[in-house]
Amino acid sequence: MRRVILNKGEQFSNKHLKRTGAFNARAMEAATNIIEQVREQGDAALRELTERFDGVAIEDFRVPAEAIEAAAAKVDPKTEEALKKAAKQIREFHERQVKQSWFSVREDGALVGAKVTPLESVGIYVPGGRALYPSTVLMNALPAAVAGVERIVCVTPPTKDGSIDPVVLEACRLAGVTEIYTVGGAQAVAALAYGTETIEPVCKITGPGNAFVAAAKKIVSGDVGIDMIAGPSEVCVVADETADPAMVAIDLMAQAEHDPLASCYLVTFDEGYADKVEAAIDGHMKASTRAEITTASLADQGLVVICDSMEQAIQSVNVIAPEHLELHFDGAFEQLGAIRNAGAIFVGEWTPEAVGDYVAGPNHTLPTGGTARYASPLSTDEFVKHSSVIQYSAKSLANDADAVIAIARHEGLWAHARSVELRKALVETGDIYGLDGADE
Amino acid sequence: MRRVILNKGEQFSNKHLKRTGAFNARAMEAATNIIEQVREQGDAALRELTERFDGVAIEDFRVPAEAIEAAAAKVDPKTEEALKKAAKQIREFHERQVKQSWFSVREDGALVGAKVTPLESVGIYVPGGRALYPSTVLMNALPAAVAGVERIVCVTPPTKDGSIDPVVLEACRLAGVTEIYTVGGAQAVAALAYGTETIEPVCKITGPGNAFVAAAKKIVSGDVGIDMIAGPSEVCVVADETADPAMVAIDLMAQAEHDPLASCYLVTFDEGYADKVEAAIDGHMKASTRAEITTASLADQGLVVICDSMEQAIQSVNVIAPEHLELHFDGAFEQLGAIRNAGAIFVGEWTPEAVGDYVAGPNHTLPTGGTARYASPLSTDEFVKHSSVIQYSAKSLANDADAVIAIARHEGLWAHARSVELRKALVETGDIYGLDGADE
Repeated sequence: MRRVILNKGEQFSNKHLKRTGAFNARAMEAATNIIEQVREQGDAALRELTERFDGVAIEDFRVPAEAIEAAAAKVDPKTEEALKKAAKQIREFHERQVKQSWFSVREDGALVGAKVTPLESVGIYVPGGRALYPSTVLMNALPAAVAGVERIVCVTPPTKDGSIDPVVLEACRLAGVTEIYTVGGAQAVAALAYGTETIEPVCKITGPGNAFVAAAKKIVSGDVGIDMIAGPSEVCVVADETADPAMVAIDLMAQAEHDPLASCYLVTFDEGYADKVEAAIDGHMKASTRAEITTASLADQGLVVICDSMEQAIQSVNVIAPEHLELHFDGAFEQLGAIRNAGAIFVGEWTPEAVGDYVAGPNHTLPTGGTARYASPLSTDEFVKHSSVIQYSAKSLANDADAVIAIARHEGLWAHARSVELRKALVETGDIYGLDGADE
Repeated sequence: MRRVILNKGEQFSNKHLKRTGAFNARAMEAATNIIEQVREQGDAALRELTERFDGVAIEDFRVPAEAIEAAAAKVDPKTEEALKKAAKQIREFHERQVKQSWFSVREDGALVGAKVTPLESVGIYVPGGRALYPSTVLMNALPAAVAGVERIVCVTPPTKDGSIDPVVLEACRLAGVTEIYTVGGAQAVAALAYGTETIEPVCKITGPGNAFVAAAKKIVSGDVGIDMIAGPSEVCVVADETADPAMVAIDLMAQAEHDPLASCYLVTFDEGYADKVEAAIDGHMKASTRAEITTASLADQGLVVICDSMEQAIQSVNVIAPEHLELHFDGAFEQLGAIRNAGAIFVGEWTPEAVGDYVAGPNHTLPTGGTARYASPLSTDEFVKHSSVIQYSAKSLANDADAVIAIARHEGLWAHARSVELRKALVETGDIYGLDGADE
């Protein structure tokens, strides 16, 4: 891991980071072409692209209900129990997030408020490829279901034999997914956005994917909603000398093993302590089944920041704005107020990041690449929208008329002012029933 | 206005609409070049581009504090009073939206929750050009201020003499804007996103603008947060024969006068009633100071939908998903549950859309172009983000360990499983104090 040693009073800054933008011109161009093909040719394009990219000929993309029901029997009991526990705890957490409609009535009778409505439909992209991600299903579909979305569509690329992992299917069943299609890549995003003969379009697309999926989401956004574009995974561990180096080491490795581009940050106070953590990494590595990825990631993207004080450590964290932040020191909760930028904060050594990936309850879809400066974890907020509601009485209209007219005139908008003047005149002449013809 | 007459039982559909996508290749290319120039040359680029596009040479973009303080004296008392009333009601509405941090403790001692943190800084784009928009300042800056954002930066293009409208400056002062810069266009967006010698970058950019501003926001998104990309304004009025045609007519005109591309929809039940509304439009038009824009908009974009039933009318509204929806019929509130898709809903004839533009309190930044299917009005949610917070006890770790291990193994993530196994072993051997070295 690279090291940065901060002097007393020195500020950590973006120049210490190796982050690059997420823009990928090649992926954008490829995704644009794929999207056009799917818009023009529908299911035929999906079949051709699936054969080309996944090497499988698929006639019917829709997974039949019987196949979903049959999946549970193929899942081993330990995994089944784990999925059920995860689903329960994720559901309970997200139930606490759901926004309520509300209104407030002013003294003059004007009612203002917001009507919260679930989205009618969402599409969830579940990556396939090297790793199988039932947890992605739970973390996307459960918040949608809790929010009240009626139609929850899951798309995922086929395995080599054209099937879908039974554990993914079972996660879909547990999470309330209503339709599953064996299609992946930018072509699946296009189908969700614009529809084909088989797949009805959805209002919003969520879920992680490779560079082509990310590019496709960016291109269709505006025609449908999308969630954030996820970059490589990140963890930042703040540890002082009271923290067990073996714990810190394995937690750094648990991010590094995702991807050679994953970023691991160790923020600590002493070079000797950092040496101990690196030695512990070497020790763990012997047993790792993903040593190659893990080693590459730590070597290329890993960074140790040696700080002079806790203030400097927290300042560094706020600049890094990590996806995952682990706090391995006494009194960590007291620093929570000072931590502004992090996707999820894991407090204390009993909270390895892995619990947050699967079962703790909070969402594992988190802002990456420093976007935690302004973005939040996926939540039920992503699966509802609100409409403002305004109802004026004749009295409230009369009260506010002059203010509306003054601003409308300043902005040069004649009919804006006139729409209020006409009504105000009716109130002033007392002829307010003339408006709806009730007394005519 | 174009007319569509729906048969009994017929569904309104997207094919009845004339909407096109928001993608503008020319604007994207121009904005890309401008952004690159600002990233390379900083303030010098801002000066050159301002001279080129606004025809004004500006040395110092920052508006001095004295100029802001002095603006109030130049605002006429009626407008000043209107701004203050608007600011008060907008502030009160948005104060009811602010999210709170929360946490919940499970029986086994695990704490899960969310820490809500205001964004550190936001930039607000306030359009100049033909119209002056103090209301844009109030509708963007007040939610940011209410949410607790410390640094609220406003950018707006200069008028021909290099100044900014005093009413806009006064709106900035009332809304708590902390910095104002006389710069507009894609170059202002670039400066807010990446910074120059004079302008520090911000975390998020909000506010409406022309095609180049919209393209620039789309390009910088991901490096900073952005709000929705606003398209042309829209209103949909649902009126039955009890509604005064003169009111319906002036309210349609109040959208049409914004822009030749603004869309006005009248959903009603009888062609004779639609004729009356169109006649009333002709009557009002004689006095309009914006007759040319208004006429062009209604002719090109206006649509009358004649429905057979209230169900069909509401179904049409949900497909249109209008930015503004006015309900001019008795019992409108009873239909609220059936209305899924609308940015803001104005209930009853005493609630012309213009009250929502300025003083009612709810935000006037609303989803356009059918995006109300999945998007919401601007709110304090846009100016805060949350971080998940998780703290496990040794007991909760032991409780959840098997579930984490089972899913991690299924996903093939060795260190994820190992990070939990190591800790579980410590709990089982009772050596849990060994972890932090406290008893060593």
